[in-house]
Amino acid sequence: MDKKEYIIRQLSRTKNKKYEAYVVTRIIHLLNNIDIKFVTQQYVTRPEGRALTDLFFPQVNLHIEVDEPHHMGNIENDKIREADIVNATNHEILRVDVSKSIEDINAQIHKIVDKISSKIKQLTDENLFTAWNIDLEFNPETYIKRGYIDISDNVAFKTTKDVCNCFGHNYAGWMKGAAPHPYDSDIKLWFPKLFPNGEWRNNISPDEETITERNEDDVKAKEHLNGFINQTNGEQLKRIVFANVKGSLGDRLYRFRGLYELSIKDSELPIGLVWQRKLTRVKTYPHQ
Amino acid sequence: MDKKEYIIRQLSRTKNKKYEAYVVTRIIHLLNNIDIKFVTQQYVTRPEGRALTDLFFPQVNLHIEVDEPHHMGNIENDKIREADIVNATNHEILRVDVSKSIEDINAQIHKIVDKISSKIKQLTDENLFTAWNIDLEFNPETYIKRGYIDISDNVAFKTTKDVCNCFGHNYAGWMKGAAPHPYDSDIKLWFPKLFPNGEWRNNISPDEETITERNEDDVKAKEHLNGFINQTNGEQLKRIVFANVKGSLGDRLYRFRGLYELSIKDSELPIGLVWQRKLTRVKTYPHQ
Repeated sequence: MDKKEYIIRQLSRTKNKKYEAYVVTRIIHLLNNIDIKFVTQQYVTRPEGRALTDLFFPQVNLHIEVDEPHHMGNIENDKIREADIVNATNHEILRVDVSKSIEDINAQIHKIVDKISSKIKQLTDENLFTAWNIDLEFNPETYIKRGYIDISDNVAFKTTKDVCNCFGHNYAGWMKGAAPHPYDSDIKLWFPKLFPNGEWRNNISPDEETITERNEDDVKAKEHLNGFINQTNGEQLKRIVFANVKGSLGDRLYRFRGLYELSIKDSELPIGLVWQRKLTRVKTYPHQ
Repeated sequence: MDKKEYIIRQLSRTKNKKYEAYVVTRIIHLLNNIDIKFVTQQYVTRPEGRALTDLFFPQVNLHIEVDEPHHMGNIENDKIREADIVNATNHEILRVDVSKSIEDINAQIHKIVDKISSKIKQLTDENLFTAWNIDLEFNPETYIKRGYIDISDNVAFKTTKDVCNCFGHNYAGWMKGAAPHPYDSDIKLWFPKLFPNGEWRNNISPDEETITERNEDDVKAKEHLNGFINQTNGEQLKRIVFANVKGSLGDRLYRFRGLYELSIKDSELPIGLVWQRKLTRVKTYPHQ
């Protein structure tokens, strides 16, 4: 998918609100800058709960909402289960009040466009702006050169092979749900579905700080839990997590969530293993 | 319906083509001028047949097509029956080739926006531009002051009462399918559905030059035809026609088509009365 395809598909997604198409397309066309990435109808998690924002600019962590946040109903809860959810806790949210006149709505949009443009300019002046490059953003080389992957950079990969290759592997393919870390034997690279799937009752807390992992079968769950607690199999107690999610255009993505460590004291049979986030930035490594 | 509602509804109509929403919204937002009226998905008749254009600017008689014209299939022929169809014979049609890169598409749109802007500027300089006013465009006073109604001005009214009041009536309501012309007893004001409806098999030719009118019952059709040919009821042989159509947003409109005169030599039982267009501009009159 190139930028053209991406932009066209993002701007033609089914609309939920009457004014959404007008506001979203106006902002994008007036920004008029294909170095700026955007996502329409982005699932987010915020202190007050999960929601959809109408337009998200990941390079500046800024969201646009057309009036009220679109709170999740039951139908959306089904969709959100495997969706790519962005933690928007410290993100800026700008609202467009569409109850006003068309001239006033246009003036509000004008201000938003100015604000985004000047944020981009500021980042550019400080040499902190990375122009949207739809090939490079999914390329492990980009992150190997940078030396790290940080949660604030909204990093996701299209394959688990690409995840592995950020940490020193040189895989042509990788089919398993986890991989060793070539440079740190205490760490496992993990690509879980963080929602109930197959025999696994996985979950991630809305603030992304806690992941729980449990087999739905009590016997298997007990065996799994004891294996970790007693270290019978030499399992790693740290995991770099790239969650298996459905991207905004229905594509499969592996979204960086951080480095998690097993909390032995919190892990118990009813909930299974409990993993706590320790780092939101991890080092990357070239292949040797 | 105010401009805000109109613009929002026009820009959020169901889209048929992949690139349509992108191109249409980009042109409107970059034109950035609410004095310019536009219609999305306008039915048109052209020498090569009926079609849909993606965007129509009635003040400059200019259409935008995203690549290929959207030629009518069977489903669309059902819709087009009662649709508001614009005769685009002498209109300008600009095409956007969306097979190109996003940068090239944006450059094509930039040229189109420049072209429309300079057309509007030229009309304004020549004092020929009427800014879009959603109240005045449907107000009989507008056309009484102007002194005429011309086909090139794309005139339509919301009620038959408003049509009548353009010609000297002062009706508060009018329920019939025709009305007398207060200033010319040879002329009738006619508000027909120009497609088969009820017991009437009416039709208008794609070039709008010929209207046929016939009852589907042979006995009634003969009586109707002979009444006109023998002038037994003193029926007027000239009609100012405002066709009863469905507007682009599903609203009822009475669209000016011209002054038609009965062609006695062409009228015959198989097709019924044949009306030929004589004028595309008619005088308006104030109420006395």
